[in-house]
Amino acid sequence: MNITERVQNLEYAIRDVVVHARQLEKKGKDVIYLNIGDPLMFDFETPENVKEAMIRAVKDSFTGYSPSEGILELREAICEKEKRVGGIDVLPENVIISNGVSEGIQMVLGALVDNGSEILVPGPAYPPYISYTEFFGGKAVQYRTSEENEWQPDLDDVRSKVNDSTRAIVIINPNNPCGALYPKKIVKTITNLAGEHNIPVISDEIYDQIAYEELVNTANIAKDVPVIGLNGFSKVYLMTGWRLGYVYFTGHDEETLEELREHVTKEARIRLSANTPVQKAAIEALRGPQNHISRMVEKLRERRDYSHRRLNEIAGISCAEPKGAFYFFPKVDGIGSRWVNDMDFVRELLDNTGIVFVHGSGFGSDYGSGHFRGVFLPPIETLEKTFDRLDHFMA
Amino acid sequence: MNITERVQNLEYAIRDVVVHARQLEKKGKDVIYLNIGDPLMFDFETPENVKEAMIRAVKDSFTGYSPSEGILELREAICEKEKRVGGIDVLPENVIISNGVSEGIQMVLGALVDNGSEILVPGPAYPPYISYTEFFGGKAVQYRTSEENEWQPDLDDVRSKVNDSTRAIVIINPNNPCGALYPKKIVKTITNLAGEHNIPVISDEIYDQIAYEELVNTANIAKDVPVIGLNGFSKVYLMTGWRLGYVYFTGHDEETLEELREHVTKEARIRLSANTPVQKAAIEALRGPQNHISRMVEKLRERRDYSHRRLNEIAGISCAEPKGAFYFFPKVDGIGSRWVNDMDFVRELLDNTGIVFVHGSGFGSDYGSGHFRGVFLPPIETLEKTFDRLDHFMA
Repeated sequence: MNITERVQNLEYAIRDVVVHARQLEKKGKDVIYLNIGDPLMFDFETPENVKEAMIRAVKDSFTGYSPSEGILELREAICEKEKRVGGIDVLPENVIISNGVSEGIQMVLGALVDNGSEILVPGPAYPPYISYTEFFGGKAVQYRTSEENEWQPDLDDVRSKVNDSTRAIVIINPNNPCGALYPKKIVKTITNLAGEHNIPVISDEIYDQIAYEELVNTANIAKDVPVIGLNGFSKVYLMTGWRLGYVYFTGHDEETLEELREHVTKEARIRLSANTPVQKAAIEALRGPQNHISRMVEKLRERRDYSHRRLNEIAGISCAEPKGAFYFFPKVDGIGSRWVNDMDFVRELLDNTGIVFVHGSGFGSDYGSGHFRGVFLPPIETLEKTFDRLDHFMA
Repeated sequence: MNITERVQNLEYAIRDVVVHARQLEKKGKDVIYLNIGDPLMFDFETPENVKEAMIRAVKDSFTGYSPSEGILELREAICEKEKRVGGIDVLPENVIISNGVSEGIQMVLGALVDNGSEILVPGPAYPPYISYTEFFGGKAVQYRTSEENEWQPDLDDVRSKVNDSTRAIVIINPNNPCGALYPKKIVKTITNLAGEHNIPVISDEIYDQIAYEELVNTANIAKDVPVIGLNGFSKVYLMTGWRLGYVYFTGHDEETLEELREHVTKEARIRLSANTPVQKAAIEALRGPQNHISRMVEKLRERRDYSHRRLNEIAGISCAEPKGAFYFFPKVDGIGSRWVNDMDFVRELLDNTGIVFVHGSGFGSDYGSGHFRGVFLPPIETLEKTFDRLDHFMA
């Protein structure tokens, strides 16, 4: 059987790690899963009004195929939300609904990446940006983000890595896995650089309303540069397993926008449509009460503070303060000596303590090695148990 | 902006045709959409027990991410169903849940098709088999199915087109768009041919329980040849807009199966999971009462008979009798003379009558040209109006 190179090299560290954890759990080990960014695994719930909207859609038999680009009312609600939250002007015709942000990433990179293409992605980065770029025959080139500077992009490094093969620059803001928030100057410089090279910026803002300081929205400040925005309902609206996201296009001339939009829409048509009743629920999520968001952020801020303090108190661990999202990405001393590499560290920790983290090199080995990613989603008691075990393990 | 060739050439005739129809509708034209295979657009409804299972899952907050390969209980229910309906032995570990069959097609072809690969697909064929093969840099080679012989595959033609670049042979049974059902001898010969060349058969059986005569299930008779089965909940269980399908692997040695399964699972991991609550509804669909199916088939049989008779009574139209699914694929005289091509015919018909059919060449120009596809899903009154208008148009 001939299996393509494309899939042979495919990796998704965040879920690949689970296979071993499940085996341990079967043997009776108390496993704490801190690898996946799913608030619903802990004390967070899909808002009642959103669940009710979903139930209503099902009862009303709103269950057939929908337009491939998504139902118009939802695309309108997205435009209102992007204006309200990010100050972004986008038209409904420039929004395409996807089965989660992951499908959005796949469709956008499918339209931009060919053999030999390069995509500039942050180092470290959320893995699908790397995986899907390689899936389509391209190369994901990681630009340095500096840990000593709260994981801000190193602009000289970004500049030095743009070349004629570069097809887009990716920003993830708030950042996954590092939790960085990029200030206006950084976003502006990166978008200008993209503009100079006539390439779009892909801006992933799925954690946009989970920020502990002010967030800058790329499309809001990059008026004359094409921005491909990626966003979704999983995190802020606690709809992880419902799989709904969206792609939007802003900036530059109408012709460029139309070209991008048309081609991504063609990809959307082949897979018919996104889930229809979930689209109704998503309209309610955006237009209904928003007060669960501030409650969630306050809960997370407390867990962020606690995690940040505890991690830095452990000998051999150091961690920058996350300013957004719900991940910590600490550095571990002794990788390369006490442990062969970060994967070895994560495995040994799992075997000894039952804690599931993701090895940093899973987010790109250039800048992720020597680290691990965990979520600070669980209640303090679970986090306490986690850090106690980690502390004991390190000592 | 550099847009990849991959998406530039992408087509999906079934939905591409809608753009023009919507414009006409806006102008006040009475448009009858017979282009999309969605029973829920007509007098069919998602079964109540399935809707209730979905509502229960949402109420119970079963809404987080699920395992990438799908929840185990659903994969078990699928194995029971495949055994019951198709006599197929498949293990839950060899089933992967997808966002509709379309995602299954994409994942399977992503694992098999490289630049220069060939996939043998029926001519005419459901378009995504052609589109996704080309999307991944391969070539969809159509084997002849003969209209004069109720659209059965021409086995000599299949045999003559297998070569060293062939990566799989696709069977769609019951066939979309032609409505053919393949007898045992045909399926057996095709699977043997695949076995000789050590390539898998991809068998799309999404219409398996919508057959007006006996259906042969590929995996049931191809014991020692690897079969990649594709199926889903959209059609038989009337869950079109819920987007749930599955891929299963049978036959041959465990090593080959594991190789295929592992690589498709890797693709599944990157997009996290399929919709979680819909998976609960799908369990109920498979394990709950099945009596809606025979009612649906009886309704459809009547509409099939009516459509088949009416079509053949129209001068210039001839149509083989569909034995499964819910499409007719008639031949039109005068294409190439009265109309430039089948797309021209479909457009003129739409402009004049408001009826939306899909041009036959959208299913592959080798054998689809000169035809059109329509659904016989609507009630007789709508079909009557349709064929009256078509008759008038042809005259």
